[in-house]
Amino acid sequence: MKLPGQEEFETSSAGENVPAGELDNVLGPGPDVPLDTDSRDMVVPNNPMLFIQLNELVGWPQALEWRETGRWVLFEEKLEVGAGRWSAPHVPTLALASLQKLRSLLAEGLILLDCPAQSLLELVEQVIRVESLSPELKEQLQALLLQRPQHNIQMRGTKLCWDSCFVESTDIRKDSHDEDAPLKEQHRNPLRQKLPPGAEAAVVLAGELGFLARPLGAFIRLQNPVVLGPLTEVPIPSRFFCLLLGPPMPGRAYHEMGRAMAVLLSDLQFQGSVRQASNLQDLLAALDAFLQKVTVLPPGRWDPTARIPPPKCLPFQHKRLSSQVWEVRGISGLRGAPAEDRHHHRGPHMPNPELQRTGWLFGGLVQDVRRKALWYSSDFLDALHPQCLSAVLYIYLATITNAITFGGLLGDATEGAQGVLESFLGTAVTGAAFCLMAGQPLTILSSTGPVLVFERLLFTFCRDYHLDYLPFRLWVGIWVATFCLVLVATEASVLVRYFTRFTEEGFCALISLIFIYDALGKMLSLARAYPIQRPGSPAYGCFCQYPGPGENVSQWTRTKPNDRDDILSMDLGLVNASLLPPPECTQKGGYPRGPGCHTVPDIALFSLLLFLTSFFFATALKHVKNSRLFPSMVRKVFSDFSSVLAILLGCVLDAFLGLATPKLLVPTEFKPTLPGRSWLVSPFGANSWWLSVAAALPALLLSILIFMDQQITAVILNRTEYKLQKGAGFHLDLFCVAVLILLTSVLGLPWYVSATVISLAHMDSLRRESRAYAPGEAPSFLGIREQRLTGLMVFILTGTSIFLAPVLKACTMYQEMKAWTSSDVSTKVGHLDSWKFMKRVKLLLMPAKHQPDLLFLRHVPLSRVHLFTAIQLACLGLLWIIKSTPAAIIFPIMSQLMYQPKAPEINISVN
Amino acid sequence: MKLPGQEEFETSSAGENVPAGELDNVLGPGPDVPLDTDSRDMVVPNNPMLFIQLNELVGWPQALEWRETGRWVLFEEKLEVGAGRWSAPHVPTLALASLQKLRSLLAEGLILLDCPAQSLLELVEQVIRVESLSPELKEQLQALLLQRPQHNIQMRGTKLCWDSCFVESTDIRKDSHDEDAPLKEQHRNPLRQKLPPGAEAAVVLAGELGFLARPLGAFIRLQNPVVLGPLTEVPIPSRFFCLLLGPPMPGRAYHEMGRAMAVLLSDLQFQGSVRQASNLQDLLAALDAFLQKVTVLPPGRWDPTARIPPPKCLPFQHKRLSSQVWEVRGISGLRGAPAEDRHHHRGPHMPNPELQRTGWLFGGLVQDVRRKALWYSSDFLDALHPQCLSAVLYIYLATITNAITFGGLLGDATEGAQGVLESFLGTAVTGAAFCLMAGQPLTILSSTGPVLVFERLLFTFCRDYHLDYLPFRLWVGIWVATFCLVLVATEASVLVRYFTRFTEEGFCALISLIFIYDALGKMLSLARAYPIQRPGSPAYGCFCQYPGPGENVSQWTRTKPNDRDDILSMDLGLVNASLLPPPECTQKGGYPRGPGCHTVPDIALFSLLLFLTSFFFATALKHVKNSRLFPSMVRKVFSDFSSVLAILLGCVLDAFLGLATPKLLVPTEFKPTLPGRSWLVSPFGANSWWLSVAAALPALLLSILIFMDQQITAVILNRTEYKLQKGAGFHLDLFCVAVLILLTSVLGLPWYVSATVISLAHMDSLRRESRAYAPGEAPSFLGIREQRLTGLMVFILTGTSIFLAPVLKACTMYQEMKAWTSSDVSTKVGHLDSWKFMKRVKLLLMPAKHQPDLLFLRHVPLSRVHLFTAIQLACLGLLWIIKSTPAAIIFPIMSQLMYQPKAPEINISVN
Repeated sequence: MKLPGQEEFETSSAGENVPAGELDNVLGPGPDVPLDTDSRDMVVPNNPMLFIQLNELVGWPQALEWRETGRWVLFEEKLEVGAGRWSAPHVPTLALASLQKLRSLLAEGLILLDCPAQSLLELVEQVIRVESLSPELKEQLQALLLQRPQHNIQMRGTKLCWDSCFVESTDIRKDSHDEDAPLKEQHRNPLRQKLPPGAEAAVVLAGELGFLARPLGAFIRLQNPVVLGPLTEVPIPSRFFCLLLGPPMPGRAYHEMGRAMAVLLSDLQFQGSVRQASNLQDLLAALDAFLQKVTVLPPGRWDPTARIPPPKCLPFQHKRLSSQVWEVRGISGLRGAPAEDRHHHRGPHMPNPELQRTGWLFGGLVQDVRRKALWYSSDFLDALHPQCLSAVLYIYLATITNAITFGGLLGDATEGAQGVLESFLGTAVTGAAFCLMAGQPLTILSSTGPVLVFERLLFTFCRDYHLDYLPFRLWVGIWVATFCLVLVATEASVLVRYFTRFTEEGFCALISLIFIYDALGKMLSLARAYPIQRPGSPAYGCFCQYPGPGENVSQWTRTKPNDRDDILSMDLGLVNASLLPPPECTQKGGYPRGPGCHTVPDIALFSLLLFLTSFFFATALKHVKNSRLFPSMVRKVFSDFSSVLAILLGCVLDAFLGLATPKLLVPTEFKPTLPGRSWLVSPFGANSWWLSVAAALPALLLSILIFMDQQITAVILNRTEYKLQKGAGFHLDLFCVAVLILLTSVLGLPWYVSATVISLAHMDSLRRESRAYAPGEAPSFLGIREQRLTGLMVFILTGTSIFLAPVLKACTMYQEMKAWTSSDVSTKVGHLDSWKFMKRVKLLLMPAKHQPDLLFLRHVPLSRVHLFTAIQLACLGLLWIIKSTPAAIIFPIMSQLMYQPKAPEINISVN
Repeated sequence: MKLPGQEEFETSSAGENVPAGELDNVLGPGPDVPLDTDSRDMVVPNNPMLFIQLNELVGWPQALEWRETGRWVLFEEKLEVGAGRWSAPHVPTLALASLQKLRSLLAEGLILLDCPAQSLLELVEQVIRVESLSPELKEQLQALLLQRPQHNIQMRGTKLCWDSCFVESTDIRKDSHDEDAPLKEQHRNPLRQKLPPGAEAAVVLAGELGFLARPLGAFIRLQNPVVLGPLTEVPIPSRFFCLLLGPPMPGRAYHEMGRAMAVLLSDLQFQGSVRQASNLQDLLAALDAFLQKVTVLPPGRWDPTARIPPPKCLPFQHKRLSSQVWEVRGISGLRGAPAEDRHHHRGPHMPNPELQRTGWLFGGLVQDVRRKALWYSSDFLDALHPQCLSAVLYIYLATITNAITFGGLLGDATEGAQGVLESFLGTAVTGAAFCLMAGQPLTILSSTGPVLVFERLLFTFCRDYHLDYLPFRLWVGIWVATFCLVLVATEASVLVRYFTRFTEEGFCALISLIFIYDALGKMLSLARAYPIQRPGSPAYGCFCQYPGPGENVSQWTRTKPNDRDDILSMDLGLVNASLLPPPECTQKGGYPRGPGCHTVPDIALFSLLLFLTSFFFATALKHVKNSRLFPSMVRKVFSDFSSVLAILLGCVLDAFLGLATPKLLVPTEFKPTLPGRSWLVSPFGANSWWLSVAAALPALLLSILIFMDQQITAVILNRTEYKLQKGAGFHLDLFCVAVLILLTSVLGLPWYVSATVISLAHMDSLRRESRAYAPGEAPSFLGIREQRLTGLMVFILTGTSIFLAPVLKACTMYQEMKAWTSSDVSTKVGHLDSWKFMKRVKLLLMPAKHQPDLLFLRHVPLSRVHLFTAIQLACLGLLWIIKSTPAAIIFPIMSQLMYQPKAPEINISVN
């Protein structure tokens, strides 16, 4: 839902530099509630949550009855009488006149503070006693006040009939036991579960009563909250009771006064004041204080009947209340102070304390280990939450899809020296080890484009110079590990403090671009592999020829015509032929001849269609999350498993049409992909000894690559807006990566570094949000469940999936994987980082008067904003150019070379 | 922009039954403005539009200067000081406290009503005189008040530098000529063009002035509005002048008071009162009246700094104002009273006066002719507006695209007896004739699905029974015309008053469904015509065989193998062969043999891709209209020509890849498609005479079809929400259709009836909207430019396009046309009619708490809403089933049979 104040029009108070938590909830649970990690940021001592209900007297003069027509916690819910349902929660709007009328009614009415009544009957008697009415009218009034009101209790699933509440209520009038006994439907009210323990109620009774000569106003604060029988919708003890009755007045005046009273009571400051008020003057002063702070909308510009949806974040309450009973505490439930200090004293781009140079060798590493050791046990205990289970499932699916895609690419890149099995094993082993040892356990290790490009180059080099690939690679790995250790020892990671949001945005945009470009490039390469046939193309001819007795078959196969003219000019003369398709032809001893025997039509376009279908399907399913259709559970499943569902859809379509689309090659047994090698790579193989020294040169390049890739991810994951509590571990992470690179080099597995996208998805699936007690209240982001268990579980599951790999053979498809990856990446990365950047790029195309009311546009001249965007765009263009040149090898993020994959070669052989 | 009160939360005042115009603008142009057809619904005598400007004193104590920080007409625009730009217009929000402070300041201040000052200097002197200040301070104050303020005038295109306004202004202090002379930038201010002639200004000066001992408030109404020199941003005469100065106070109090004064002045009721006020009490009473009507937002629930975008329609102003100076007039600029009466006295589904039965033969027709004759000259004069030109272009493109598509379909359906040329000619002739004669000239005649189905059936019947098609069709046409005349004579059209929104929604949903189903069916039929080749399919073989000296070529061509086994088992023995592609083979005297010679791979999938591409492209372009990117002119062009652009894109893609996709067959010369026939159909041809009588039976069915189709369209077009002024002509329209059917039958052209979608598009392109003078104000719908000229022009253009037809041959494609049609229809129809229906279908899938706050959900129980939707869905299902059965011929809307088009037959011939 779009909010007027939040999206189109950003509020000026919601500054970027203010941690989100401080903007949000101000309403805390009662003092009885234990403070677990899910409780609110701010705690309100002595102020339990107040549920306010408006009972209106309807049906004058014939059939008087009380009906609940409104309720409030933070926002207003109105009874839609015709439809018999509660409206959506909305910001209550009042007429100033009704507030003023209420004020004068209260000023003349009965105010009882700390009334000792123990039941509704006692309360009513207290109210009636002071009224100057005839005894007959008094009795009539009392009977009326004790009458059971109609509540519109919406049961989950079943609809409670209006009529069933409409029981004869006069017989319980005088019986104080019965009267105070809550009704069954009160107990079954689902609202009761939503209210926190310790919540109190306030009841406002309002209406027109013809036999009253003058208005009757009463406001009662009970000394001890009492359950007032069937008066409230939920059987919780009531603290406040307000009566607003009088002779008929135009414009539903008493209803509006009742609403005004309820809105007043729902205001936290008024609540606080009225709880401490000792006389009428205090009450009126609280009302006047409220009036001083209200926002006024002019009559001609705003329809007073329009309902304003609840804003996503409420205004700074503690600004108004800071001097009062309110305590602004940091994030509660934290075990250590350092995290709190971190958040209170650090701006958005201030260097982390983790990035302070110590000046000793390995000083940063030692500090990282020390800091993380404190949290180590909690890293496992904090995982005991059902949310972690669904996170494991989600990240497992993402990881396994990644491992398969990467395995396929690796098999291509190294021409079978490594493959899917290595990818699975490497992912599982390094991932699990990293989760156990690393500084930032939420980071997911993965193979990234640049590293893959490097492996491809290394392989090509070895093949061209006839070197033994894996042994040479082992030495590169050993050198990389050494260099990385040097970087750890010299605390080089502190350099990342110079990465600003400018850099990050640029890199994130580049990553998105590369992924999309990559996916499109794959598609085009497929069109080259399976050419689309145009009319008059020479690929038509094909028939089955049986060799004559003296003919030389090998002569056919050798002659490969190079172009169209060759084929056309070829006259075959007299041949013994049939029209059998190639496989049957070969079976019957013939030889398929002609260019048409080898072309596979429709594959390229069909793959493109599959790509588009699964891309749009995945994107559409992801958007289901923000739609209003379906219950939220179903929406969550759809969007969390959008990629898996899209892949399944693609597989089903593919299987249904049965075309010969390229499938993934998966191993059938657990042994290295390269035939004949053992799991341990021999240190030299066929290479001469000096190559182990020469390997230092490529290793230097790879080290820079890995350092940049690793640390940019770490910086992005440790942004302040994610509210990480346990601190980062830049040095420790790099150390772990170094050790794992050594390990994977020895075992001949791929190399891994931290992956931005999947790590962000991991964090996202572990968000802690505050529970919203009040209808219409938006839950606020509290932080991330920082622990090591989800990652560990994911990689253990990935490890066991090695044996599942052959199952995937049947349906997994290359193109879909790429589609998924690019859809996923473009949405995720786009969503997270290049978002503000994209917003600014859009501004370039937008006429000034259509521009949204963004915060920075209020304070920075448009020309300066455009200049900044233009510089960023220019830098992005520069990066792209660098990436596309041979200089790319020095450059950390590039995978250009991956875009020329080894296409299945098509030999137009005229046999 | 989504508004809180309009979309998510519908206002309860915006009832469906209230004509939209009454909800909208209440602000009229000044009395000097001539009342043309574009002027407002309501006219405000004596109340010219007021432009209010707040000049704030900044820079105390060193560099005092006035700066314009806010401006109002209806909504507030705030100066973003940092960014140097005006904010988007928004609903002003005030603090109640500042209104109260303003009230007490005014109560104690100087009130001058009908001040005779003729210049700023005189005015300032009047204000200063009454102040009890020392002469020195008086002079200082006067100098300050005469100082030229800084305006942030945003020039179109060029940005006016802040510094250029910052000229030394003290030298013009005492010179009354110079001082009152407006500055150049004031004249160049683009805002000036936007304000209506006769608009007046109000200036509020507010700020902190340290040397004042007590607050200084002054409110002056000038007897005659005077241009106050450089004081206002635009050089228009000022009526009000308000000064709010005082010693420093916390919280920008004077700024807020100044805003409060400006907001008060922007309120129309306050404006009216203050214009007539004769003393301070009147002024304060007006302020209090304003306060009584304000809407109050509680402080804790609403951030007072949040900006609320302007609502799409303002609240009922005339409810507040009806007793005052306001006059609620109907739609102004109408020449006759009847239209006004129509709108004031008719509910949404009350029968039109046009649908009252007269009881005489042809009584309805006579009345229609009489009613329309009154408007006939205005039907041409009203077209003299540039908007009509763009409407002609837009509808011409839609019509020509329709004519081509229909021509293609007709050629298929009648196997060449009629074709594209007939379609063009028929469209042009009947369309132009209808525009000149018909009752509802905005209706566009077009061929519709049901009529086409009927023609197809008629043709099949004639072919099967060896009848002469066109002569038989002539007799059917004669009978149809006769039956329709009977229907006109008996005033059968009055029956349409029984068509309710329930029926309309059902039919519209069905039309959308059929179009979408049709497009998909076309795609599938294409896949049948150009089969996708699976691995091992027998369609591979093809080679070029030269006949031996004694061989019988005709033997090859006759043997057509029926299935796979036939082909596989065929052994050709020794043949003289080459691998030449089929065309070259035939050229060299050979014969292409084998199933592969005739298959065209990739066509089906490529067509599907083209279909999807152009569909998404067209849809995306259509949505550009609602985006914020690009200037509004560019957006309008993109969305108006979305279909043409999408077709062009498809053609370019097709030409680029050069595949043998099916192209449209277009005639090369102007003669009937059927060879040998003249333009006049002979009355009997080869048929026997009694067939002319028998033709009455199919004619009866077609008459029902045409009557239903024609009248449903007419009902939809004459809905009250379109505010048609010149009345409908149900009888006259049917009469015209009958005459035209006779004409087309005689000429052998297709039959035409009114088309819903394109007629709605026609009306949509002729919308009259009020000009929005105030920033942020939404233009309101005033009506349609009802005239005959646009339609006439469209069909004259279509007629001349017959000679353009061959040009289309190169690039026009069937699939794209269908894609365009279905995209267009689904958006148009969906947008207009099945919209509410679709909304309710969505509600079925939506959990109650996520449902939007629709008006009907507030008043109707959800279960009843669901029941209604379910019944409608069931009816729709029933219609679909009826449509799909042979009974369809009786049923008016169906084109099921069109879904089995005559696919290009593929003969797998083994020659």
